[in-house]
Amino acid sequence: MIEQAIKGAIRDIPDFPKPGIIFKDITPILKDPELCEGIVDAFVEGLKDTRIDAIAGVESRGFLFGLTLATKLGVPFVPVRKAGKLPHTVKQKVYELEYGTATIELHTDAFKPGDHILIHDDLLATGGTVSAASELIQEMGGKVAGFTFVVGLGFLNGLEKIEPISDKVIVLANY
Amino acid sequence: MIEQAIKGAIRDIPDFPKPGIIFKDITPILKDPELCEGIVDAFVEGLKDTRIDAIAGVESRGFLFGLTLATKLGVPFVPVRKAGKLPHTVKQKVYELEYGTATIELHTDAFKPGDHILIHDDLLATGGTVSAASELIQEMGGKVAGFTFVVGLGFLNGLEKIEPISDKVIVLANY
Repeated sequence: MIEQAIKGAIRDIPDFPKPGIIFKDITPILKDPELCEGIVDAFVEGLKDTRIDAIAGVESRGFLFGLTLATKLGVPFVPVRKAGKLPHTVKQKVYELEYGTATIELHTDAFKPGDHILIHDDLLATGGTVSAASELIQEMGGKVAGFTFVVGLGFLNGLEKIEPISDKVIVLANY
Repeated sequence: MIEQAIKGAIRDIPDFPKPGIIFKDITPILKDPELCEGIVDAFVEGLKDTRIDAIAGVESRGFLFGLTLATKLGVPFVPVRKAGKLPHTVKQKVYELEYGTATIELHTDAFKPGDHILIHDDLLATGGTVSAASELIQEMGGKVAGFTFVVGLGFLNGLEKIEPISDKVIVLANY
């Protein structure tokens, strides 16, 4: 099963990025091309009844499987980036972090009003960034088609934040 | 031809990120899944006689086609990241920018000594980052299999920096 394969590849890094945090390192997954293909196939299978007009991938690790998935599904990929990185006209969203705030941006022409946008990131933690991305997409007239993550940290309760936004949430490996 | 298709999609953004620079915005390429597939196919075709044991993609835009290409070729993907982002033991390389310095890192177990590593980024400008990545790979015992870029800014002379490192350099659309 894909969940076991993902968990078998992931490496726990204690005390990163700060003391007391056990970081889930996904880089060993990227070194296994069959597993990478399996991850994309599992997303495709889980999304087969979902209308998707574009995939929004969150910088930077959401760029990895985000574009591969978009190419496989034959839909546009739109990057969700940190402030100041996207060169054309943008709309931005400021959101709260544990300490301070962060800002994400989308190009204003990333999609058309009414389009169904799937949000992808590699890992669901508190859900702060992807729920900010959802709000940004909705403010731009898009609908949130759902969410895909390779890994979810269930104990951080990110699902509670995003399940009210869409009932299509795919987390391939849950902790 | 792929070059015309890429150039037809790219959008010039004057004065970004600073006055006098004309930025080549690749995001319209990402919105065209057939073009994305064509880009990956063109890389695969250009690399068919090249030994590649892993692809090193440069954060963040090198993550886009980097993982898609690695999955298609059936080889590992290893991320080249800015300092402090990779969680396991790293080796780093500091290199010169126009003003100041930058630092890139690779996990020390990203590949085995003797492996042939292809370096990928979306755009070749001065070649500073990818030549720093080359030096880092060589210091870690790897061989540089070559370089792939979607776009090259010929007038910045990046090729002069990287052609001495490998004779396999693929730039799909040259300016």
